[in-house]
Amino acid sequence: MAAAHTLAEIAEHTGGRLFGDPRCEITGVAGIRDAGPGDITFVANPRYERDLATTVASAVIVAEGLALPEKLSGIIHSNPSRAFAQVVEVLFPPPVRPKPGVHPGAMVDESASLGADVTIGPFVVVEAGARIGDRTVLAPFVYVGAETVIGADCLLYPHVSVRERCVLGDRVIVHCGTVVGSDGYGYVQIGSRHEKIPQVGTVEIGDDVEMGANVCVDRARFDKTVIKRGTKIDNLVQVAHNVVIGEDSLVVAQVGISGSTEIGDNVILAGQAGVAGHIRVGDGAIVAGQAGVTKSVPDGHTVAGMPARPYEEFMRGQAVLSTMSDWTRKVRALEQRVAELEEVVRRSKKSPATDK
Amino acid sequence: MAAAHTLAEIAEHTGGRLFGDPRCEITGVAGIRDAGPGDITFVANPRYERDLATTVASAVIVAEGLALPEKLSGIIHSNPSRAFAQVVEVLFPPPVRPKPGVHPGAMVDESASLGADVTIGPFVVVEAGARIGDRTVLAPFVYVGAETVIGADCLLYPHVSVRERCVLGDRVIVHCGTVVGSDGYGYVQIGSRHEKIPQVGTVEIGDDVEMGANVCVDRARFDKTVIKRGTKIDNLVQVAHNVVIGEDSLVVAQVGISGSTEIGDNVILAGQAGVAGHIRVGDGAIVAGQAGVTKSVPDGHTVAGMPARPYEEFMRGQAVLSTMSDWTRKVRALEQRVAELEEVVRRSKKSPATDK
Amino acid sequence: MAAAHTLAEIAEHTGGRLFGDPRCEITGVAGIRDAGPGDITFVANPRYERDLATTVASAVIVAEGLALPEKLSGIIHSNPSRAFAQVVEVLFPPPVRPKPGVHPGAMVDESASLGADVTIGPFVVVEAGARIGDRTVLAPFVYVGAETVIGADCLLYPHVSVRERCVLGDRVIVHCGTVVGSDGYGYVQIGSRHEKIPQVGTVEIGDDVEMGANVCVDRARFDKTVIKRGTKIDNLVQVAHNVVIGEDSLVVAQVGISGSTEIGDNVILAGQAGVAGHIRVGDGAIVAGQAGVTKSVPDGHTVAGMPARPYEEFMRGQAVLSTMSDWTRKVRALEQRVAELEEVVRRSKKSPATDK
Repeated sequence: MAAAHTLAEIAEHTGGRLFGDPRCEITGVAGIRDAGPGDITFVANPRYERDLATTVASAVIVAEGLALPEKLSGIIHSNPSRAFAQVVEVLFPPPVRPKPGVHPGAMVDESASLGADVTIGPFVVVEAGARIGDRTVLAPFVYVGAETVIGADCLLYPHVSVRERCVLGDRVIVHCGTVVGSDGYGYVQIGSRHEKIPQVGTVEIGDDVEMGANVCVDRARFDKTVIKRGTKIDNLVQVAHNVVIGEDSLVVAQVGISGSTEIGDNVILAGQAGVAGHIRVGDGAIVAGQAGVTKSVPDGHTVAGMPARPYEEFMRGQAVLSTMSDWTRKVRALEQRVAELEEVVRRSKKSPATDK
Repeated sequence: MAAAHTLAEIAEHTGGRLFGDPRCEITGVAGIRDAGPGDITFVANPRYERDLATTVASAVIVAEGLALPEKLSGIIHSNPSRAFAQVVEVLFPPPVRPKPGVHPGAMVDESASLGADVTIGPFVVVEAGARIGDRTVLAPFVYVGAETVIGADCLLYPHVSVRERCVLGDRVIVHCGTVVGSDGYGYVQIGSRHEKIPQVGTVEIGDDVEMGANVCVDRARFDKTVIKRGTKIDNLVQVAHNVVIGEDSLVVAQVGISGSTEIGDNVILAGQAGVAGHIRVGDGAIVAGQAGVTKSVPDGHTVAGMPARPYEEFMRGQAVLSTMSDWTRKVRALEQRVAELEEVVRRSKKSPATDK
Repeated sequence: MAAAHTLAEIAEHTGGRLFGDPRCEITGVAGIRDAGPGDITFVANPRYERDLATTVASAVIVAEGLALPEKLSGIIHSNPSRAFAQVVEVLFPPPVRPKPGVHPGAMVDESASLGADVTIGPFVVVEAGARIGDRTVLAPFVYVGAETVIGADCLLYPHVSVRERCVLGDRVIVHCGTVVGSDGYGYVQIGSRHEKIPQVGTVEIGDDVEMGANVCVDRARFDKTVIKRGTKIDNLVQVAHNVVIGEDSLVVAQVGISGSTEIGDNVILAGQAGVAGHIRVGDGAIVAGQAGVTKSVPDGHTVAGMPARPYEEFMRGQAVLSTMSDWTRKVRALEQRVAELEEVVRRSKKSPATDK
C-alpha cells in the first residue's frame, strides 16, 4: 500500500494550481475509468473529459480549460501526464532492492562484463562473454547465456532464462520463469519424420519492455525475433520465432503469436487470442480475447472470433446465433404458409375450370 | 503403484460391514465413473446409486440401505466418504520425503524463521523476514521472497517462486515452475506510452489449495489476490491481479482469469476457458472448456461459447450452425416459391381485367 | 547464421549431380514453401513438384526425372531427403557445448549413475538412484528426480524439472522451464471438498522427442503418461495424466490435451487447440488452431471449431455466420411478402362472395 499524501503535498511536488479540498487524502493511482476512492487520476486527452462527471476518484490532474464538476478536487497542470508520472514516483518510492554487489554464491564467468552497481543474487549463472548493464538486478536463479547483452537498469526476477546471444535494452523488466531465446519450433518433414532445422538466430528486446511470468520468446531461425520499445507482455504468452512486435503494444495473458508474424505499434492483443504465422496485425489494431487471427488485420481495425472478422460482424453473427432457433422456426412456419398459399392457388386455378 | 490390499484388510482398517469377496485385491482408488478393475470406489450420494449397476470397480464403499448389485464386493459404512479417505491413506502411504533439515547448500536469511522439522533442499533461497511453517518441504530451487509466510505441512516443488509478502496457508501444494506474486499487468496510458502502475499488493492462498505446474498468480495492485481454502488449480493457469477465487473450486489447465474478477465457491472452470475482468462467476457455476465469459454468471448456471451464453443455447446454436447450408438453401427455395406465387397473383389480378 | 557454402561444395559433400550455377551461395535451409533467397531446399515427394515453379530458394535437391524450371540451380540425387539432412549438418555444425564433466557446483547424489562424457552444469540437482546417459548435457538449474532415467545424447536446458521415476529416451531435447512428471490433476469429491487422488504413475518420453519451453507433462495416476519417438512439442503445451501421444506428431504451442486421451501417430494439433479427456485423435488427423475436440477424430480427418467438426463444415458455418444478417433480412422480407400474398388470397376468397 502506498503511503498517504494530501492533495496539497502532491500539488506542491508537481507544481500546478490546486482546486477543491487541499486536505484530500491520496493513497493510490489509476486510469480515470478504474480509479476509486483514495486514487488520484488524470485527464490529458479531451476524449476522456466526460469521464470527469462520473469518476469516483478522490482527485484528478487536468489541463487548463476543462469544465470541472463542482465536487471534484485536483490540480490544474500544464502537462497532466507528466505530473501524474511524478505522483506515481511520490506515492510509490522504488521497492527496496538488495545492496549492489555480486553474491559469492553466483557463478559469473570471468569473461563476462558487469556494469557499475549491478546486483547479482545467489545461484545466478552468467556465461562467457555476457555483458550486464549498470544498476541491473539479476535475482536468484537467473540464467544469462553466453554473449548475451543486458542493458542498464533492468530487473530480472527469479528463474528467468535468457539464452545465448540475445539482446535486452535498458529498463527491461522480466518476471519469474520467463524464457527468452529458446529454439524456434522448426522442422522439415523427411518421410514421416521431422528433422530439426537449427535455430541459429537470436532475440532482441527494446528499452522499457516488460514481460510477465512464464512467457516464452523463441529465437529466430537465422535472423532475429524482435519486441520493440515500450511493449508490455503479460503472463504465459507465446512469441514464436521470427515474430516482430512493434512499439507500445499490449499483449495480454496467454496470447500466442505464430512464426514470422508482424505485430504493429500500439496494438492490443487481448487475452488468449491467437495469431497465425506469416501475417501482419497493423498499427493500432485491436484483437479481441480468444480471437483467432488467420489473415492480416489493417491498421486501426478491431477483430474478433475464429476465424477473426470485423468486431461488429462477429457480434452480429453471435447475436443471431443466440436466436437461431427462432429463425429456423420462422423458416419452418414460412414453408408451411407458402405451401398453403400454393395449395390455394392450385385449387383456384382448377376451380375456375370446374366452375365453368 | 499402490501396494495391494485385500478387501478384508481394508474393511478391518476402516470399520464397516464387508459384503462379497473378502479376498478381492485392491490396488487403486477412483471416483465411481472412472474406477476400473483393481480400484475401490464409494457412493455417498444417492445421485450416484445407479452407477453401482455399471461400475467395473473391484469394490465399493456404500451407505446403509442402497440396493447392491449381486456381483459387487465392498463395505457398508456409516460414512462412506470418510472411509474412502482412510483407504487412500492405507493404499498410498505418504511419499518418502527427504530427511528434515536445512541443506548446507541452501541460502536462508538469518532473519527468516523456520518451523519444526522443515525440509529445505539445496539451492533454495529464503529471503529476509520470511516464515516457514512446521514440517513444510521446500524442494531445490524454491525461491521464498522477503516477509512471505508459508504455513505448516506445505510442499513446494522445484523452481517454485513465491515473491515478497505473500501468504500461503497450511497443507498447500505447489508444483514445479509456478509463480506466486508476480506483478499484476497494470499500466496507465500517457500519450501513446504505457506507464507502469506499481503493484504493491500481495497474494493470499488458503489452506489445502493445490496449484499445478507453471501457474501464474499475480499480486494485487494495492490490496490482495485471493485463492480460498480447498481450491485446486491445474497447470498453466493465469490468475490476474485482484482476482478472488472462492473455496473448493476447480480451475482446469490453461484457464485465464482477468483482473479484479471474483470466482465463487464450488465453481468449475474447464480447460482453456477465459473470464473477463471485473465480473463475477457465481457459486456452483460451471464454465465449459474454451468458453469466453464476458459478463457475470449467476450462481449455479452453466455457460459455454464465446461470448459465453447458457449451455443449451450454445449447443443449439452450434447444432444449427452445422446445418446452416440446409437453412440457407431452404430460404432460397422459399424466395423462389414466393416469387412464383406473386407472379400468379399478379397475373390473376390482371387477367380479370383482360377478361372484362 | 550459418556459414556460406557454394552449391558446388555442397554437391561434392552430398554426392549427386549438380545443375545450374555451381557458385550459387547457400546460407540456410528450409522446406520448399518457406525457403527464401540463400536457402537450399528439397523435393522428395512428387506432391511438391509444382512448388518448384514458384520457389524463390537459391537451390533445390531433387530426385531424378522431375521437370526442372530453367533458372533453378540444385542437385539431382537418388535420395533427396538424406542429402538434405547432410546439408543441414554441413551448414550448421553442432553448437559449441561446455566441456564434458561435472561442475563442482552441482549436487549429484552418490547413488546416481552418470554415463561417459556427460556435462553437468553448476546448480544442477541429480537425486538418488537417477541414471544419466552418455554425452547427455544438463544445463544449470536442471532438476532430475530420484530414480529417473535419462538416455544418451539428451540436452536439458536451464530450469528443466524431471521428477522422480520418469524415463527419457535418447536424443531428447527439453527447453527451459519445462516440467516432466508433475502430479496429474486428480481428485475425488467428498461432500463439497476435493480429496487428492495420489498420482503414483510415471512419464515415458521416447527417443528424438523435443519439448519446448514451459511445457507441462503430468505423471499418470497409476500407470504412465507416454510421448512416443519423434514427436515434437512446442512451448506452453499441457499434457495431462495418462495421455498417450504417438510417433512423429506435432503439438503446437499452447495446446492442451486432457487426461487419458490418446493422440495417434503423425497427428498435427495446431496452436491453442484443446482436446477433451478419454477420447482418441486418430493417426494422421489434423486439428485446426483453437479447435475444441470433444469426441474422437477418425484417422486422417481434419477438424476445426468448438465443438470440433469436419473442417469444411466448420468453414461453411462460419461463412454463413458472416452473412447471417443478410439471411435474417431475407427471412423478414419473405414474411412480409407471404403476409401480403395471404391478404390477397383472403380478399380474393371474400370478394367472389361479395360479388355474388
